[in-house]
Amino acid sequence: MSSNPSTSSTSGGGGPCGACKFLRRKCVAGCIFAPYFDSDQGAAHFAAVHKVFGASNVSKLLFHLPVQRRHDAVVTICYEAQARLRDPVYGCVSHIFALQQQV
Amino acid sequence: MSSNPSTSSTSGGGGPCGACKFLRRKCVAGCIFAPYFDSDQGAAHFAAVHKVFGASNVSKLLFHLPVQRRHDAVVTICYEAQARLRDPVYGCVSHIFALQQQV
Repeated sequence: MSSNPSTSSTSGGGGPCGACKFLRRKCVAGCIFAPYFDSDQGAAHFAAVHKVFGASNVSKLLFHLPVQRRHDAVVTICYEAQARLRDPVYGCVSHIFALQQQV
Repeated sequence: MSSNPSTSSTSGGGGPCGACKFLRRKCVAGCIFAPYFDSDQGAAHFAAVHKVFGASNVSKLLFHLPVQRRHDAVVTICYEAQARLRDPVYGCVSHIFALQQQV
């Protein structure tokens, strides 16, 4: 999968995380997005996520997951979001159809 | 795929479409959701779509598609939404992983 989030360990030290940078809001300590969207490439990844799922929906989804499951959730959410922007009709379901043809 | 939207031809005649019923709003003529979410099962399908993607994001996505592509878009969006509710970490990407194992 080619859509790994831009991992950063904290939002401290270098300004807002990519999500807060994109949303133009203050990145507080404990920001739920900061570990997964760095200040550099993270903003572009988050833009796709926000456009397709909405920041609020993703925030709620992550909040209800144990911390150790959140990275995988962010990876798959980024992947789905980018696929939906590339192909607004089928999104990543086009990959499922293609794989089903091969099986 | 087991998540076809509940197709109805219009929102007229039988009260609001499933989306407007769920959102508790007036279903106007030309409602973008009405052809795909009927007043009966459509509300349950739309609840999943709204929880995962948000009504506004899906409305914008459909609005930018030609009418003849919207049904397929709604089918895949319902499918992704239901998969994400069943498996909040991997969503339908778990199906991609499973199929990739088989290929």
